[in-house]
Amino acid sequence: MSIDRLCVIGVGLIGGSLALALKKAGYCKHVVGAGRNEQRLAHAVELGILDDYTLDYAQAVTGADVVFVAVPLGAMAEVFEKIEPVLSPQTLVTDAGSAKHSVVEDAMRVFGDKINQFIPGHPIAGTEKSGAEAAFDSLYQERRVILTPLEENAQSDVETIKSMWQAAGAIVDEMGDRHHDLVLAGTSHLPHMLAFALVDCLNSMEDVDEIFRFAAGGFRDFTRIASSDPTMWRDICLSNREAVLVMMERFQNEMAIVKTAIENNDANALYALFSQAKSARDEFCM
Amino acid sequence: MSIDRLCVIGVGLIGGSLALALKKAGYCKHVVGAGRNEQRLAHAVELGILDDYTLDYAQAVTGADVVFVAVPLGAMAEVFEKIEPVLSPQTLVTDAGSAKHSVVEDAMRVFGDKINQFIPGHPIAGTEKSGAEAAFDSLYQERRVILTPLEENAQSDVETIKSMWQAAGAIVDEMGDRHHDLVLAGTSHLPHMLAFALVDCLNSMEDVDEIFRFAAGGFRDFTRIASSDPTMWRDICLSNREAVLVMMERFQNEMAIVKTAIENNDANALYALFSQAKSARDEFCM
Repeated sequence: MSIDRLCVIGVGLIGGSLALALKKAGYCKHVVGAGRNEQRLAHAVELGILDDYTLDYAQAVTGADVVFVAVPLGAMAEVFEKIEPVLSPQTLVTDAGSAKHSVVEDAMRVFGDKINQFIPGHPIAGTEKSGAEAAFDSLYQERRVILTPLEENAQSDVETIKSMWQAAGAIVDEMGDRHHDLVLAGTSHLPHMLAFALVDCLNSMEDVDEIFRFAAGGFRDFTRIASSDPTMWRDICLSNREAVLVMMERFQNEMAIVKTAIENNDANALYALFSQAKSARDEFCM
Repeated sequence: MSIDRLCVIGVGLIGGSLALALKKAGYCKHVVGAGRNEQRLAHAVELGILDDYTLDYAQAVTGADVVFVAVPLGAMAEVFEKIEPVLSPQTLVTDAGSAKHSVVEDAMRVFGDKINQFIPGHPIAGTEKSGAEAAFDSLYQERRVILTPLEENAQSDVETIKSMWQAAGAIVDEMGDRHHDLVLAGTSHLPHMLAFALVDCLNSMEDVDEIFRFAAGGFRDFTRIASSDPTMWRDICLSNREAVLVMMERFQNEMAIVKTAIENNDANALYALFSQAKSARDEFCM
């Protein structure tokens, strides 16, 4: 399989890296980019990410085999609205949103009876950098991509999107959108909330300069994700609100158990809690 | 300045690395080790960490200029009790405990009118490894060591311990023990509680294998400290109970603010919380 014409809407790290990976794999002949910032799009052409670009989304998707929407979650519905009127039946649309149920709801509302052409996806990849300058062709090598296909999708269309990601080096899984949202809330969204909250918590203390000065390597690793883009994370929280709240609740209950054990000087309970965590972490993350 | 005879009680990563650093710096002529496991002590001699060793703590401290107690917090009082009867006036004792107020309380009780000879300390250094095999001479290079001197300490004795750490490459700060405990509760002990609780929280969910499978690089960094030694962390929680509980309470309040903002779909509040955290983290950890 291969793609004659790929349209990337939102040419940043995620969109740009897919374009580079597919070009390198010889899987895609022509990549057109679309977005709101002409200067950045022109730069992406210079960088060899795009073959050409346009600010007109309708023009961009015309004749495309696949449209990859890699914009922030908060901008997803607006993009869908711009491309829906010109979407011809042979074009498939997929996305890179970190939350899936809210994107599916937007897509259902906007695409209506063209919803079969939309295959929701989420590449679990990224770096702390952003922008097309940060894009590189091996970003998706050995990384997971989750597709959350809809009942309306033809299996052959799901396979087309799956093959595209595999050509970029990714391992593709399928699951329901609600399940995706809970899994990601646990492994990504909740940890980000904890890191942001920890830094804000210390930052509100007296002698804050001194407190951070004595932070060791473990603290730096632990809070690295608190350096993430605030706009992106605001959007993720609001888009995956329900699952994030479920996980925060579960976490607060777990913290209450640890706190009670400390309050009660319960050495055995603390040892059990910490050694369970160590075993699980060592088993799954090695 | 220099040390003729250093006694290290507890020859693991922390104790072994100090011995290696001081030998390399030519700051210390003779290092004697003491501990409970003869095989490990003999191995530390083979590794060039120790010049000799004994299982008899009284014999080990006799004639020592400085005794470095680098045992787990839970074993500190027992070591103090063993060495106090043979402690001659020219010997200084210091330690490596991650909590300071509880160690000072133990020391006051055990050392009595010899308390002036005890200078409490905490090197903020370590790796995820432990044991004398993991020791290396540059562990303390550019790392912080906090001393929490007592009113009873002579300034010249504090300077002796300070010079020793500087010879090992460390940057030495002084502060009160209670203040140390709160600073470390915030930058080290609370983050460990969050990492342990997060892994336990996910580990208790259904489909736990799948959940960890989709964890990306950020999760690995974030939970690395959940691989730490459960015994050590049980001891730290209990030894620094008061400050850890204060920080857990503060953190829970911060999390409640984030949770309320998500519940209320308050985009502005979330953006403000996340961007404050990002700014603070980027400023202090770069």
